[in-house]
Amino acid sequence: MKLNDLTSEIIRKKSYLCVGLDIDLSKIPSEFLRFQDPIYEFAKRIIDITSKYVIAYKPNLAFFESYGSNGFKSLEKIMKYLNSNYPEIFTIADAKRGDISNSSLMYSKAYFETLGFDSITLSPYMGKDSIEPFLVFKNKYAILLALTSNDGHKDFQLQKKNDSYLYEDVIKKSQAYENSNRLMYVVGANHFTLLKNIRRIIPNSFLLIPGFGEQGGDLEKVSNLAINDNVGLIVNSSRKILYSFSKYETFDLEIEQSTKKVQLKMEEILINKSIINA
Amino acid sequence: MKLNDLTSEIIRKKSYLCVGLDIDLSKIPSEFLRFQDPIYEFAKRIIDITSKYVIAYKPNLAFFESYGSNGFKSLEKIMKYLNSNYPEIFTIADAKRGDISNSSLMYSKAYFETLGFDSITLSPYMGKDSIEPFLVFKNKYAILLALTSNDGHKDFQLQKKNDSYLYEDVIKKSQAYENSNRLMYVVGANHFTLLKNIRRIIPNSFLLIPGFGEQGGDLEKVSNLAINDNVGLIVNSSRKILYSFSKYETFDLEIEQSTKKVQLKMEEILINKSIINA
Repeated sequence: MKLNDLTSEIIRKKSYLCVGLDIDLSKIPSEFLRFQDPIYEFAKRIIDITSKYVIAYKPNLAFFESYGSNGFKSLEKIMKYLNSNYPEIFTIADAKRGDISNSSLMYSKAYFETLGFDSITLSPYMGKDSIEPFLVFKNKYAILLALTSNDGHKDFQLQKKNDSYLYEDVIKKSQAYENSNRLMYVVGANHFTLLKNIRRIIPNSFLLIPGFGEQGGDLEKVSNLAINDNVGLIVNSSRKILYSFSKYETFDLEIEQSTKKVQLKMEEILINKSIINA
Repeated sequence: MKLNDLTSEIIRKKSYLCVGLDIDLSKIPSEFLRFQDPIYEFAKRIIDITSKYVIAYKPNLAFFESYGSNGFKSLEKIMKYLNSNYPEIFTIADAKRGDISNSSLMYSKAYFETLGFDSITLSPYMGKDSIEPFLVFKNKYAILLALTSNDGHKDFQLQKKNDSYLYEDVIKKSQAYENSNRLMYVVGANHFTLLKNIRRIIPNSFLLIPGFGEQGGDLEKVSNLAINDNVGLIVNSSRKILYSFSKYETFDLEIEQSTKKVQLKMEEILINKSIINA
């Protein structure tokens, strides 16, 4: 997908919401368990209900892998369903990969070619040659962990060297990688003060902001700090949407309402920022 | 597996060799392609030929994932085969995972429970709560990336803060994690001078040393710097063993020879270090 098309889709849908597919069989309604592939059926239902309010889906590989090859099979079917029925929706493999170049090449094939994702999240620890293999694919994107939402971000990401934090070095150095225009960055929704600084370093890059929802984070505050002329922002919510039902009978309605509620808030923010008209 | 049992196995086999299973269908003899599951059949053959010379196998997830759910299925079969037939051999999921605690918990289930690995490689970038979920499993191990063999290690791992490199901070901080006795570390075989320093910080931990073989690295030099009283060392070779055949007719013999050659070198080193008797 071209970045322009992603921005157009955000403007068309008045939303920069991404739904994270962290599908846990112990949390979905038991009615889905009668299907041969409950993970796929649940995902398909979630997608059909929420697609008009969201611009991206983010399957979380940890959850799929915990079900072994069956989980991986479900993911393949979900990606096929998405790419056939909703090609305009951006897809993110939340995989946090990164390895020596030969292995990173294999991961890039797995996610961009075999599974057909538009993008993948990566960990920067192994540096340039672990990231660049992902950047050779036209219209595909690598989303680098910069400043994460979990408590452990303090351990290393906020280490300072010559007045520069590690997360800043990650952003700055990676901007010099070949095809760095295909890089996006993960920034936790709880880093209000640092978000401003990040936007100074990369005013034009897309940011993927998880941590809105279960992990806290204030949508309006984050959006005001991070939105740029191309919007440049994808905000993720996983559990707060997937599991926002009280009973199976009202499943569709409740999921739709909780998604639409976020979309409406985003619409309001986009209007206030004069990105779209009221 | 208990660490004592790993050391016993090293002494019994006079080897600390790990074979990396980076299985690439374009590189294996075409004779395997007639099987319904060539990846599994190739791995099984490699394992049967090499098992008496090695103490660990390290499937590289990047390669398996590049074949999608079929690759994952092959991996499940390989792990079942290993755990049924060679329970004394240590298994390493070379996966380089790491995520927020909820997702790391899912990854730990995937690799320790669903797939039955003894250990998994992890990236430290997200800090403490991304690693600790892996450390609650008894007799299972998390192998943290410290100083990697690829060129990109210079980008961040060698960043210095208050006279301490990032890779040193990773080692030191992680040693304070809960159940840190279940931590091992990845150190590239090309870091001769820094290995000495690493052994000063963690004299007792096991090190996983890739980069011997295709990526260079001098076995004797590395071993002399890294071996401790419990050996404490696993040295990996992937492509130099898997693809060390010239033709299918002599496949078994050539693979055995190239593995045995490394084992004999290791035996000599262990004798010189007085770990075993001549």
